[in-house]
Amino acid sequence: MLSFVNDYSEGAHPAVLQRLIDTNMEQLPGYGKDRYTRSAAAKIALACGHEQARVFLMAGGTQTNQVITSTILKPYQGVVAADTGHVNVHEAGAIEAAGHKVLSLPGRKGKVDAAVLDEFLDAFYTDANHPQMVYPGMVYISHPTEYGTLYTRGELAALAATCRKHDIPLYLDGARLGYGLVAPGTDVTLSDIADLCDVFYIGGTKVGALCGEAVVFPKGDPPDHFTTMIKQRGALLAKGRLLGVQFDALFSDDLYTRISRNAIKTAGMIKEAFRQKGYRIYMDSPTNQTFVILSNETMEELAKQVAFDFWERADESHTVVRFATSWATKTEDVQALISLL
Amino acid sequence: MLSFVNDYSEGAHPAVLQRLIDTNMEQLPGYGKDRYTRSAAAKIALACGHEQARVFLMAGGTQTNQVITSTILKPYQGVVAADTGHVNVHEAGAIEAAGHKVLSLPGRKGKVDAAVLDEFLDAFYTDANHPQMVYPGMVYISHPTEYGTLYTRGELAALAATCRKHDIPLYLDGARLGYGLVAPGTDVTLSDIADLCDVFYIGGTKVGALCGEAVVFPKGDPPDHFTTMIKQRGALLAKGRLLGVQFDALFSDDLYTRISRNAIKTAGMIKEAFRQKGYRIYMDSPTNQTFVILSNETMEELAKQVAFDFWERADESHTVVRFATSWATKTEDVQALISLL
Amino acid sequence: MLSFVNDYSEGAHPAVLQRLIDTNMEQLPGYGKDRYTRSAAAKIALACGHEQARVFLMAGGTQTNQVITSTILKPYQGVVAADTGHVNVHEAGAIEAAGHKVLSLPGRKGKVDAAVLDEFLDAFYTDANHPQMVYPGMVYISHPTEYGTLYTRGELAALAATCRKHDIPLYLDGARLGYGLVAPGTDVTLSDIADLCDVFYIGGTKVGALCGEAVVFPKGDPPDHFTTMIKQRGALLAKGRLLGVQFDALFSDDLYTRISRNAIKTAGMIKEAFRQKGYRIYMDSPTNQTFVILSNETMEELAKQVAFDFWERADESHTVVRFATSWATKTEDVQALISLL
Amino acid sequence: MLSFVNDYSEGAHPAVLQRLIDTNMEQLPGYGKDRYTRSAAAKIALACGHEQARVFLMAGGTQTNQVITSTILKPYQGVVAADTGHVNVHEAGAIEAAGHKVLSLPGRKGKVDAAVLDEFLDAFYTDANHPQMVYPGMVYISHPTEYGTLYTRGELAALAATCRKHDIPLYLDGARLGYGLVAPGTDVTLSDIADLCDVFYIGGTKVGALCGEAVVFPKGDPPDHFTTMIKQRGALLAKGRLLGVQFDALFSDDLYTRISRNAIKTAGMIKEAFRQKGYRIYMDSPTNQTFVILSNETMEELAKQVAFDFWERADESHTVVRFATSWATKTEDVQALISLL
Repeated sequence: MLSFVNDYSEGAHPAVLQRLIDTNMEQLPGYGKDRYTRSAAAKIALACGHEQARVFLMAGGTQTNQVITSTILKPYQGVVAADTGHVNVHEAGAIEAAGHKVLSLPGRKGKVDAAVLDEFLDAFYTDANHPQMVYPGMVYISHPTEYGTLYTRGELAALAATCRKHDIPLYLDGARLGYGLVAPGTDVTLSDIADLCDVFYIGGTKVGALCGEAVVFPKGDPPDHFTTMIKQRGALLAKGRLLGVQFDALFSDDLYTRISRNAIKTAGMIKEAFRQKGYRIYMDSPTNQTFVILSNETMEELAKQVAFDFWERADESHTVVRFATSWATKTEDVQALISLL
Repeated sequence: MLSFVNDYSEGAHPAVLQRLIDTNMEQLPGYGKDRYTRSAAAKIALACGHEQARVFLMAGGTQTNQVITSTILKPYQGVVAADTGHVNVHEAGAIEAAGHKVLSLPGRKGKVDAAVLDEFLDAFYTDANHPQMVYPGMVYISHPTEYGTLYTRGELAALAATCRKHDIPLYLDGARLGYGLVAPGTDVTLSDIADLCDVFYIGGTKVGALCGEAVVFPKGDPPDHFTTMIKQRGALLAKGRLLGVQFDALFSDDLYTRISRNAIKTAGMIKEAFRQKGYRIYMDSPTNQTFVILSNETMEELAKQVAFDFWERADESHTVVRFATSWATKTEDVQALISLL
Repeated sequence: MLSFVNDYSEGAHPAVLQRLIDTNMEQLPGYGKDRYTRSAAAKIALACGHEQARVFLMAGGTQTNQVITSTILKPYQGVVAADTGHVNVHEAGAIEAAGHKVLSLPGRKGKVDAAVLDEFLDAFYTDANHPQMVYPGMVYISHPTEYGTLYTRGELAALAATCRKHDIPLYLDGARLGYGLVAPGTDVTLSDIADLCDVFYIGGTKVGALCGEAVVFPKGDPPDHFTTMIKQRGALLAKGRLLGVQFDALFSDDLYTRISRNAIKTAGMIKEAFRQKGYRIYMDSPTNQTFVILSNETMEELAKQVAFDFWERADESHTVVRFATSWATKTEDVQALISLL
Repeated sequence: MLSFVNDYSEGAHPAVLQRLIDTNMEQLPGYGKDRYTRSAAAKIALACGHEQARVFLMAGGTQTNQVITSTILKPYQGVVAADTGHVNVHEAGAIEAAGHKVLSLPGRKGKVDAAVLDEFLDAFYTDANHPQMVYPGMVYISHPTEYGTLYTRGELAALAATCRKHDIPLYLDGARLGYGLVAPGTDVTLSDIADLCDVFYIGGTKVGALCGEAVVFPKGDPPDHFTTMIKQRGALLAKGRLLGVQFDALFSDDLYTRISRNAIKTAGMIKEAFRQKGYRIYMDSPTNQTFVILSNETMEELAKQVAFDFWERADESHTVVRFATSWATKTEDVQALISLL
């Protein structure tokens, strides 16, 4: 059966796996002190154009979001996010379990608008009751967003400026960052993100790794005793090499970027086919996720031969569904899908 | 200067204070094991029409909300509340600090609508991703609401039915309950609340006490080791008598109800005067809070002689302000206010 | 029946109660912004000899300990305390519920020894694994201790020096501080405590108030947004006047000190009587608690006419019991007790 | 350079790695719903002799301990552990960060003694103040312990009986369980553990896997919504296959047991050599860790050619050091080490 159900269906990219194989019997120090983790960190800092950047590797996205928010926020602060943001909806309360509120703003196609943010922050401080409210202490955005949309460089710069105006850090969740960086029409580079954000992570789990996300502090200023906090949150792997080797591979010879392109190419083929065949695109997204509105009959028929993801009900007789591609998507599978439309 | 700024400006009702004076030198056991606390609990249970009810006394509202939500919710659950609910906005993140998300629903004049709630709960369980989301584990309402509005008996019954359908408890925050019970036109009695809610609290701080809220479990089923949890949350007073004596007084000879009427009578005079003099009422509320829209000039002029509460900006040139009355409001002060309108 | 069961059996000292009566109908701002709270803070700062001190009033001791530790400690830190310390044993896990470990040291008659502390702190940093351990972030002591014992000025100074050497704050729990300050033989003054500690609290609940503890930051450096954190922990009373008026009274005309003397005088009578009559004193304590070892028969006999506190089993046939006095203890009750020995 | 510094220096056992290679490009469902995770769970249940057992896979030990304790304990409960237990000392406060106290008992060579436990639990409930204390809600033991020692079947049965008597669950941390099961002289089998414990985990990270620990609920009774809680704690891998494939390999053809034997065999050679050459063994441990007391000169000399772990200072001129072996230790490396002694 064909599957476009998500972007984490396969294991590791073969080149990443090969590095795990090659290094398997080397004796290496634990807890991220191995040479591959160091090498990965240096390569990522270089790719970001911030040599002084500090890089930390964690196993998964929710874990990373929990560690970042709980170490950067003060206890009287919460994290501002779009109402559709992953931290607000799909992390089972990980942020709150660590003691912090998610202050949700109405999103626009998954994005936080700088003007809406600015108004929210201004209003907070002009409210005489704000000492009895949760202080906004950080802004969370995802790029690509949960809807596969992207910020422009100008939008990111405006968010960064708003954050600086109010003296709070900007945090970017890059679970699918690779796919955002090579999307058609984007003007946002990894360097831009490192310039504009205070902290962000580069997703590995969905872009070629078996697991792993690389947290980057571009200014080289992680929270105090950050490794201890990673340990406390249960996020410090004894065999840190598992993450180090994979990211070292992903950031060698531009592998991370190269493998991301396959997802965009195949997603483009799918989007184009849906459009040509007269389907309604639910949300125009330039990355590896394609959201289409299908009549329920079409959906059920198609589901007999293709796995895809239910997204939400559109109306009585139509449903929004998602087709995801990745570094691993095969062109022949895409062609097989198109032939079914 | 005249003041209608809130409903906690004075100390205790004289009859409550007198009981503190009368019992002051009695040697009594600590931590709520004294005879006045027991007597207060029995009188409250009787007033609720639920003899088996269990009653616990705490010092303040935020504390009470934190203890109740953190002991009733399971760790994978959050509390559903109106977006304007006190727990969602004005408790400095007390619910999240104890590890739980507030799941906010769009409120209607401060109220949660049973149909909106039902739809939200249905949608949650039909979402295939709900195991990665925060489970709704309790519904929080306030009565009167933060806007001074009241549920009807029918509305409360519908909420209770919806909660039962989805097997989650209904919790009512009665910080100003006294004023709700004696408001004109209400058909909700204390017995109704005890019949329909799984847990609620009867506010003392704003209705005649120096401090104190009485938590009622009408079915007699507090969480396990509830006193230990009260202690853990820093909410167990060594001299529990302070709360016991006050609530024993408030629930003797119907004092709680009797003193609440003064707030309603004086609020009614203020509402009537504003209406007669052509002011715009912002939200029609039958309890002790009056929300009026004033032009900024009028507001500034009035503020020279009367203290009231800024609520929110209405537009460029108008502001919503609040005038609060209480058990302690003097008729002559109300008349002085009216003469200034 | 005679009672020496604890030091919080009565209500407020009459002079404190009188101030509550006198100010009861004044209209005052809420949340600790009233003039009595300000006045109390100023008087306490003066009594401490630190004009720049910042003072905050809370309702009870466990609450205070939770707020202080959770706002001063960083998330990777715990609080060091004697194994017998109140925060380690008798607060139902309030410190841990707020996310922090209590790092217990073997106490000596309830006290932390500076040399033991220094060795512990040195050992922590020389342990190569300490980044995977809880960092000591604060030292908690009680004065008087849970056993009624007192630090000498030299002992306190040594603790303070050790804390400064390791750059962590020293926190003193003064739930019964009044009784410590007037104990025979003590060389520790309130000024000494303010000079040597980074934060401490002056207990009101056990020394003349209905409730209330006054937290003092002698250097005037409370944690950021401390009032918001007090609110978040459920510890901010709407009618802050309840605490303000009481502490204003306690720190007028040296009332706090004067009423403390009664507890010491009466405890002295009891200790002397036990000694003269040949009873074994369990722990020599100069403050308001007297620990005696009674044979089980004597204990049962005495318990028919006097209430006292079971402390711990001494051996098969003997028990340690506690007799507590307070500002409220009557000389005739003490004489009645002595006549029974 | 020779290395015996720990038991997580290499990657995965070649047979485990091969399974990752073989399955790498299979499209599999995420979040532990893949067929390898199911197969691993079934094989583990079978190996435990409890077909109804429920098995969950997590990435690391601290994470597992945090998830288990925070989902099984009630908020008023803490976990009882030996003072040397990993949860008490080396997890950076992970248990407390999730809100629970570690109630430490004096250990005996890393073990909790059933009689000591029973006395502690009896004393807790007979203490009249226990409602203001942290309730013991679970017992944590490690097998092998942090000192490489093992419980006998009788000792485990006594602990289990004590736990049942007091109605609290027994939890066994098996980070190095493989090495314990094949140690000389042990009479404890995996079935015994499944019979006697309420929950335990089988360590993969230190026994042949790149990462991963298998949590077993032998009675098939995980906490409610356990997967949601794993997600909330940041411990749910999108590519759950990474864990599923590895444990499926480890529990095929008895691989887990077979590879464990190498660690015991090589550790035995080391222990024997140290003994024969007259070194002092610090603690007699039958598993893969060897603790020896070296004079500081010998230690420094040896350290030039062999990596081992500093454990603790023995006295002024001697140090306790640890030599660890694992499934990956080569006999020739052991011989090289012995030739240096």
